[in-house]
Amino acid sequence: MTRQELVAQINKKGSFLCVGLDPDMDKLPAHILKEADPIYSFNKQIIDATHEYCVAYKPNTAFYEALGLEGWKSLEKTQHYLRNKYPDHFLIADAKRGDIGNTSAMYAKAFLEKLDFDSITVAPYMGEDSVKPFLIYPGKWVILLALTSNKGAADFQNLKTGDQALFAEVIRKSMAWGTSDNMMYVVGATRAEQLGEIRKLIPDHFLLVPGVGAQGGSLEEVVKYGMNKQCGLLVNASRSILYASSGADFAEKAKEEAKTLQLQMKTLLQHRA
Amino acid sequence: MTRQELVAQINKKGSFLCVGLDPDMDKLPAHILKEADPIYSFNKQIIDATHEYCVAYKPNTAFYEALGLEGWKSLEKTQHYLRNKYPDHFLIADAKRGDIGNTSAMYAKAFLEKLDFDSITVAPYMGEDSVKPFLIYPGKWVILLALTSNKGAADFQNLKTGDQALFAEVIRKSMAWGTSDNMMYVVGATRAEQLGEIRKLIPDHFLLVPGVGAQGGSLEEVVKYGMNKQCGLLVNASRSILYASSGADFAEKAKEEAKTLQLQMKTLLQHRA
Repeated sequence: MTRQELVAQINKKGSFLCVGLDPDMDKLPAHILKEADPIYSFNKQIIDATHEYCVAYKPNTAFYEALGLEGWKSLEKTQHYLRNKYPDHFLIADAKRGDIGNTSAMYAKAFLEKLDFDSITVAPYMGEDSVKPFLIYPGKWVILLALTSNKGAADFQNLKTGDQALFAEVIRKSMAWGTSDNMMYVVGATRAEQLGEIRKLIPDHFLLVPGVGAQGGSLEEVVKYGMNKQCGLLVNASRSILYASSGADFAEKAKEEAKTLQLQMKTLLQHRA
Repeated sequence: MTRQELVAQINKKGSFLCVGLDPDMDKLPAHILKEADPIYSFNKQIIDATHEYCVAYKPNTAFYEALGLEGWKSLEKTQHYLRNKYPDHFLIADAKRGDIGNTSAMYAKAFLEKLDFDSITVAPYMGEDSVKPFLIYPGKWVILLALTSNKGAADFQNLKTGDQALFAEVIRKSMAWGTSDNMMYVVGATRAEQLGEIRKLIPDHFLLVPGVGAQGGSLEEVVKYGMNKQCGLLVNASRSILYASSGADFAEKAKEEAKTLQLQMKTLLQHRA
């Protein structure tokens, strides 16, 4: 999916919401566990309930791998369901991969070719040759970790390297590896005050922003510091939508939660500079 | 597997060789491709041919994920084969994972519980809470990326953060998260001169050293700068063993290559300080 197509979806729907598909067997509604493939059933119902209100879906691979072969099967089925039924949604494999060149090429094949995601999250620690193999697929995206939403982000990402923090150096250096048409960055909503600094470095790039909802980030703050003229934001919510209810009404409650976020986003989009 | 058990295996075999199981469909011998599960067949023959000469095996998950569901199946079968037939070998999931706490917990479950590996490689960029969930399994290990063998290692790992390079800060900070009984570090053989610096920081920890063989690192240099009294090294070779021949004699040639390395290692172990 091109940047123009993504921006068109955002404008059409009045939403820059990404729904994180992190299905945790310990949190699924009891009645779903009786189904043949509970994860897939759960995802399908969440997707059908929320698709009008979001522009992207982001399965986190960890939640599928934790179930072994069955989990990988559910991930494949979820990706196929999304691609076939909702072809206008931007699909993110939240996989946080990255390895030496010949190995990153295999991860790229796994998620951008074998599984036809539009994008994959990539960890920057191993540098340029660990990221570039993901950038050879036309219309596909790398979403590089810059400043993450968790407490541990402070351990290394905020360390000063010369005049700037490591996360800023990751952005500065990696800008030469791709363009704003094939690279985005992960910036946690819990670091909204640093979004302004990041926007100065990359005025045009899209940012994938996790941390609104269960992790405590504020949507208004994210927009205040992070929005650009094209919107430039994909704000993710996972747990607050998926587990809005643990009962038979989980999909209905997920829909309400997604709709609430979308309505806030619509207002914020209308008031952008 | 405990450190004592690993050291005992190293002494018994006169080897600190780890064989990387990175089966690339484009490089497998033609006759293997006709089998029902070529990857598993290839791995089994490589394992049977090399097990006497190595103490560890390290499947790199990328090569399996690139084949989708079938690849994950081959990975599971390979792990089971190793665990059941060669229970004395140390098993490394070279997965380079790492995410926020609740997600890293899922990756830990995937590789240390559902798939019963002894250890997993972890990327440090997201800090303490991304690493700690892997450390709660008794007898299991985190192998944290410190200084990798690829060109891109220079992009961030060598950046000065205060008085030292980022890789040294990763080591310094992470030492508090675990002990030399449940943490190892990845240090590329192509950076042998920096191994001495790392040994000063962590005299007791095991180091997993990729980059000997196809990537050009020298075993003698690695030993000179990196060996400690317990050996403290697992030196990995993948391509130089797996693809020593592309013909029907691939397993025999892999055996010769592994044996050559083991004999060098035996000599180097005998001459250690």
